[in-house]
Amino acid sequence: MDHENVTVTRGTRSTLPIIVAVHSTLLGQAIGGCRIAHYPHWRDGLTDALRLSAAMTDKAALAGLPHGGGKTVVALPPGRTLDAAARRDVLHDVGDVIAGLGGRYATGPDVGTGPDDMVVIAERTGHVFCRPAAAGGSGDSSEHTATGVLAALRAICADRFGSAVLSGRRFAVLGLGRVGAHVLRMLAAERAILTVADVDETRRAVAGDATWVSPEECLTAEADVLVPSALGGLLTPATVPRLRCAAVAGPANNQLDAPETAALLHERGILWAPDFVVSAGGIIHATAVELHHETTEQATTRIAGIASTLTGILESARATGTTPLAAARTAARLRLG
Amino acid sequence: MDHENVTVTRGTRSTLPIIVAVHSTLLGQAIGGCRIAHYPHWRDGLTDALRLSAAMTDKAALAGLPHGGGKTVVALPPGRTLDAAARRDVLHDVGDVIAGLGGRYATGPDVGTGPDDMVVIAERTGHVFCRPAAAGGSGDSSEHTATGVLAALRAICADRFGSAVLSGRRFAVLGLGRVGAHVLRMLAAERAILTVADVDETRRAVAGDATWVSPEECLTAEADVLVPSALGGLLTPATVPRLRCAAVAGPANNQLDAPETAALLHERGILWAPDFVVSAGGIIHATAVELHHETTEQATTRIAGIASTLTGILESARATGTTPLAAARTAARLRLG
Repeated sequence: MDHENVTVTRGTRSTLPIIVAVHSTLLGQAIGGCRIAHYPHWRDGLTDALRLSAAMTDKAALAGLPHGGGKTVVALPPGRTLDAAARRDVLHDVGDVIAGLGGRYATGPDVGTGPDDMVVIAERTGHVFCRPAAAGGSGDSSEHTATGVLAALRAICADRFGSAVLSGRRFAVLGLGRVGAHVLRMLAAERAILTVADVDETRRAVAGDATWVSPEECLTAEADVLVPSALGGLLTPATVPRLRCAAVAGPANNQLDAPETAALLHERGILWAPDFVVSAGGIIHATAVELHHETTEQATTRIAGIASTLTGILESARATGTTPLAAARTAARLRLG
Repeated sequence: MDHENVTVTRGTRSTLPIIVAVHSTLLGQAIGGCRIAHYPHWRDGLTDALRLSAAMTDKAALAGLPHGGGKTVVALPPGRTLDAAARRDVLHDVGDVIAGLGGRYATGPDVGTGPDDMVVIAERTGHVFCRPAAAGGSGDSSEHTATGVLAALRAICADRFGSAVLSGRRFAVLGLGRVGAHVLRMLAAERAILTVADVDETRRAVAGDATWVSPEECLTAEADVLVPSALGGLLTPATVPRLRCAAVAGPANNQLDAPETAALLHERGILWAPDFVVSAGGIIHATAVELHHETTEQATTRIAGIASTLTGILESARATGTTPLAAARTAARLRLG
């Protein structure tokens, strides 16, 4: 059994299945977001919780955090909606289940939840992070995630092009949500050459001097680095052959549709920075500030470490002839002892 | 979600998956045996735990117990064996997990475990029953199970033949394990007419004056009541058409290969006493004596109640035109409120 512990509890208020998977506490308290999503059966939610909590262990280990991986999934039956009162009940149920784990796991926002929901969970347990700053939390983490992305972009440019300088380098930023917009702003400040896209046309307002194109054009743009900043599953056997970039590195989660796609990128000579390394800035900041009471300055120093972690992974991949994905997993195993 | 709580824990000593499903504590502490068995994956063991714990809720409710249903499953990977030390580790892991539930669940023997194993589990938690008498437990429950079977046989004879008198009535007892041997002895004392069988020829020694036949002959014997006392899954679409009895009632677990087989018996006019009602004597005694510190006399009075419970189920089935299985489930729901 890979996981240390999994509990599935029928919420006493909501009667909904609250699934908490604790994959590892080897390096410390397990952390991982609270997902509220629809599933045909709660056992499908369990499948997600098992997979996502294991991925969090790797992410936390590679981020140098004193934490393991966990995940909460609230499995909504098909068609079930939550009004404000029902949502509050669910979040209190989640809080009770987490409280019952006695500190072995702490949660944060994920698909279907946000910082305000963490405040409600915190009414039942202190093992919560990413609450809004006004509620005593670490606040919006998107800028810190973007800071980590910049560190990763410098590292991948150094590895791929022999220079960490971003000025004059061509980036295609696909997705201008909160994190993507910060990344774009930071790259613009470095005087990078920018092509951007978002499925939401209204976000063109934040594009500034960057060249606005369609998402399809952005995906296949001639660029030094493609920066996926929105949806997961962007890199597939269908899209990889059409890429015209030299490297891919961005904060979007689950960029590969399947692990095998890492090999396709490798064969095409496109250097891929594992997303769970690139996107760690947010959780590094949130856990440092909210769970370990460090300053933002201390957290920012940790976030800068993403560069050396990624450099080590890329060097190891090249030295052993494997993909960066395989090298990252090996590196995570090493940190887990 | 039907279940209140399910936990899957990697045993700290054994590293094996310890699954505990608590289906219901509506009527009181959940009870159910600890199964140690092989599964392709622990999630298959989870499937068993979910199913068996739900069945225990019905069994406990119909037995009039102040308990709900639960189940422990230790999922052994294919080919994995346990030597004495490894078995001890597993049982201590089970004890720790049960202790962590804080009294919401108590365990006993099941497939792959026995009374002596309960003594080892009890080194880690007090929520255990069916320990040997020498270890302060309720001891071998087979005679109490048999007492309950006799009560059920009187009830089914009264319903089917208009008389609860067992003398002169023809019974085919299939299986002479510990419970079956007690049932045979008790029926012989009532001067019933007995045909018996067991796959183990050496058990012919306990057959006494009963007519010894092959298991196949016993299954299809012309009899008033067939008394399945060994393996489950005896009643199938293949065997039901060949039965030559008027009723079936015995302590074997899971006598139906599938719920639909209850309808086949019904169509043939063969009255079937739901096994989870008939076989409850053992757990009634064990929980009364070991968890509630009642005397054996008090427990025996409770066991006699199996007769009126079964009578009510059979009457309800006839009144509503359903199978005894459906009527039993409805009766369980009623007791659960």
